[in-house]
Amino acid sequence: MKINRNYLDLKESYLFSDIAKKTAAYKAANPDADIIKLGIGDVTLPLCKAVTDAFHAAVSEMGEKETFRGYGPEQGYGFLRDAIRDYYKSEDGVELDSDEIFVSDGAKSDLGNILDILSKDNTVLVPDPVYPVYVDTNVMDGRKINYIAGNAENGFLPLPDDSLEADVIYICSPNNPTGAAYDHAGLRKWVDYALGRGALILFDAAYESFITSKELVRSIYEIEGARKCAIEFCSFSKIAGFTGTRCGWTIVPAELEFDGVQLKKLWLRRQTTKFNGVSYPVQKAAAAVFTPEGLSQIRENLDYYKQNAKTITDALDKLGIWYTGGVNSPYIWLRCPNNMGSWEFFDLLLTKANVVGTPGAGFGAMGEGFFRLTAFGDHDRTREAADRIVKLLK
Amino acid sequence: MKINRNYLDLKESYLFSDIAKKTAAYKAANPDADIIKLGIGDVTLPLCKAVTDAFHAAVSEMGEKETFRGYGPEQGYGFLRDAIRDYYKSEDGVELDSDEIFVSDGAKSDLGNILDILSKDNTVLVPDPVYPVYVDTNVMDGRKINYIAGNAENGFLPLPDDSLEADVIYICSPNNPTGAAYDHAGLRKWVDYALGRGALILFDAAYESFITSKELVRSIYEIEGARKCAIEFCSFSKIAGFTGTRCGWTIVPAELEFDGVQLKKLWLRRQTTKFNGVSYPVQKAAAAVFTPEGLSQIRENLDYYKQNAKTITDALDKLGIWYTGGVNSPYIWLRCPNNMGSWEFFDLLLTKANVVGTPGAGFGAMGEGFFRLTAFGDHDRTREAADRIVKLLK
Repeated sequence: MKINRNYLDLKESYLFSDIAKKTAAYKAANPDADIIKLGIGDVTLPLCKAVTDAFHAAVSEMGEKETFRGYGPEQGYGFLRDAIRDYYKSEDGVELDSDEIFVSDGAKSDLGNILDILSKDNTVLVPDPVYPVYVDTNVMDGRKINYIAGNAENGFLPLPDDSLEADVIYICSPNNPTGAAYDHAGLRKWVDYALGRGALILFDAAYESFITSKELVRSIYEIEGARKCAIEFCSFSKIAGFTGTRCGWTIVPAELEFDGVQLKKLWLRRQTTKFNGVSYPVQKAAAAVFTPEGLSQIRENLDYYKQNAKTITDALDKLGIWYTGGVNSPYIWLRCPNNMGSWEFFDLLLTKANVVGTPGAGFGAMGEGFFRLTAFGDHDRTREAADRIVKLLK
Repeated sequence: MKINRNYLDLKESYLFSDIAKKTAAYKAANPDADIIKLGIGDVTLPLCKAVTDAFHAAVSEMGEKETFRGYGPEQGYGFLRDAIRDYYKSEDGVELDSDEIFVSDGAKSDLGNILDILSKDNTVLVPDPVYPVYVDTNVMDGRKINYIAGNAENGFLPLPDDSLEADVIYICSPNNPTGAAYDHAGLRKWVDYALGRGALILFDAAYESFITSKELVRSIYEIEGARKCAIEFCSFSKIAGFTGTRCGWTIVPAELEFDGVQLKKLWLRRQTTKFNGVSYPVQKAAAAVFTPEGLSQIRENLDYYKQNAKTITDALDKLGIWYTGGVNSPYIWLRCPNNMGSWEFFDLLLTKANVVGTPGAGFGAMGEGFFRLTAFGDHDRTREAADRIVKLLK
């Protein structure tokens, strides 16, 4: 029996364990230090009431013979796919058919599993810096990976480069870790590029709910032609605090065809063969997000996080520090002051302000010299952290 | 962009849609016919009270800031992995470490996804007849598949055949669709065979909770040496009616090494990269299955289904019809009377007894001439169906 030896080519990431170790060591040496963590990529506010009400009701249904549900449709219940369809229509003006929407336990699963239906011979194009699973999932399959550089000059929003081979293109907008988001003109270029060379775009829209600026794109299907070249991944994690509840969706438009085969058909075959659908109570909870009460309640939570982002960007503006994100994203990506390296700045913030963030170098070579702060914390603590940063660097 | 063309080699299964079509056509022509379905592979009894109580409590926790949970461990919470470990110890006398246990959204996901960590160059050995996803998931990867025949002579429990190449061996016991289950001597032969040739056994134990006979094996780790050659898949679906709630687990023992690499380490890497764990409330619900109240309540449900199985096997005994399963399994696999083909017998039962079952031919070539009935129905309806079958065939 032979293993998949591509796994031996994976690089271990020690980013978050290194952060934890350095923080613990500092705390051990300075037990009275009041450390504030602004490195968290996870939500902290609870599920809203519309969601828990629907969740409870569905659990009760599962406890009665008359309303009990066994195996559901692998691609998700119609009530949830219809609710997602209506959300796209009302929020983005995007028309979808419900059978182009596939419900899953989260965008991370789908972003990994989608590669099942793509040949190993494709070359993938990945932005740098980036969410590490785009790279790792392709290393596992032995695919060739090209990188396209984000940097301060392009605002960490790289545009197509004809000199780079690319069959599959990853775009995450608003981006993790940089918070930068493409406008219509930028994404128009990527869609044209993909259509021109017969490439596939994998569009990660997990942070779309943080977008308020009209000129930015929430769904790639706002761009004409995208239905012929793009799959979109999204999730309830950041919209509605589902990181521990687990529900997401993937859109595979009917027009999306390669080698004369509908990708929608291949993905349905993949999901019906290797997946058995999302827990019924979780799907009922997710559908409640899109009711009028749900939408109003999750907006309160999103506003809470956005206020944190503003607290942080106000401090950076005061200091004249360059950054991306923060306005249409929970992430703030800043240039380390005084040409410091990412880890050098991490140590400075930890030891002199007792604030923990995430070194940009952990997201790729182009992240060196940059630093990520997040808006998922508490109002008072975030304000305190911002004050300390201003005091330290002013 | 090139698709994974192995998908084009998949055969579409029309088994259940053909059954539905034939049944609907008969019903249209005979609107008064009182049709009883004994072909269902899904549970029908609701979640037990211990489970829904824990489920509700966890949903409430998710609605409060103090007790809210975001991202959990990808391999499952410790409280659930410990509960599964203790279940193996008390039910089967099998000692496991909690970190050999990986919680997921179900055995179907894990049985498909486990192939990620195995080379495409392996040859797999699949019993015939069998649960179709073993075959389909390997066709998707382009692996060579050998079949080993179940038949009435070996009681649909084939034993190793040295003439067949096999790097990866699927065993489902109690089997779907035949209900046949290996005893210690039979599985001993498979474990010795795998150890002798350096093969890996993928052991599907989804129906283990139906086993009451002491001579049968519930976990492959009851067989010495299995920790060096076998991965075990199991699920809350049939134990506790979780087919719509979604939770399962996979065991990858620490000793399991190929090419000098621990499979446990590869599987952890796969899961942390392509999966984000099971919904917290679902994990709490699953852990409640293993409390004293939970165990007593699920046993009532299992006994209910077993009574149905006995109703069916009593009828077959009365008719002198040969079958496997039914005692330690919710499935009864019978030889069609009078040398009828599977579909011929299906038509006879449908039109003359108004009972719907599943033609064995739908599970592989060796299933021709056999037929599956299931024990997941209602007591009264199952008794009525059994009476009709006796009346028709006696």
